[in-house]
Amino acid sequence: MNKPYYAVIFTSTRTEEDQGYSEMAVKMENLAKRQPGYLGFESAREEIGISISYWESLEAIASWKADTDHFFAQQKGIKDWYSWYKVRICLVEREYDFTKLPSEEGA
Amino acid sequence: MNKPYYAVIFTSTRTEEDQGYSEMAVKMENLAKRQPGYLGFESAREEIGISISYWESLEAIASWKADTDHFFAQQKGIKDWYSWYKVRICLVEREYDFTKLPSEEGA
Repeated sequence: MNKPYYAVIFTSTRTEEDQGYSEMAVKMENLAKRQPGYLGFESAREEIGISISYWESLEAIASWKADTDHFFAQQKGIKDWYSWYKVRICLVEREYDFTKLPSEEGA
Repeated sequence: MNKPYYAVIFTSTRTEEDQGYSEMAVKMENLAKRQPGYLGFESAREEIGISISYWESLEAIASWKADTDHFFAQQKGIKDWYSWYKVRICLVEREYDFTKLPSEEGA
């Protein structure tokens, strides 16, 4: 990812209603991967859930938000699954990473 | 948060070395809160860890990165705690949120 790209940070707290949530989460992740402009996805949940999807452009984000199946999932999320959420659309301006060499493991 | 602001997304996988990690994580979160320009912090870990800190400016992020105690923690993280990490510095361009009204809970 060398060009500027976008991150959509979705932070949420869940209700106690769990029915269908996990299946929908998997379905939406798989559906997102097939969208034009999709770059990646990261997710973790403890007290709060953080899901970040990465996209080539604002247009790609808008298309994904308006996707029919995704729109249905969003409505269901508002009705049943989330007590709170926040969406932030962000331009990734800089990035760097670190990978430990195998020989360094436990060194 | 009405002005544009910044998010630092820190995504990581851990080594099996745990010694001192949790204490340092709490210490760094408390230290970050006292930095000029700090706006907020969110974190969750499952297969991967995602920690996001929010800042008023790139200058605030640079100061926090260079903080002596934080710098020591970063070096310790590279040496012992992380097998991989990625840092993304992002400009938050848009945001919106949703809060369920109490009367809607479970409706």
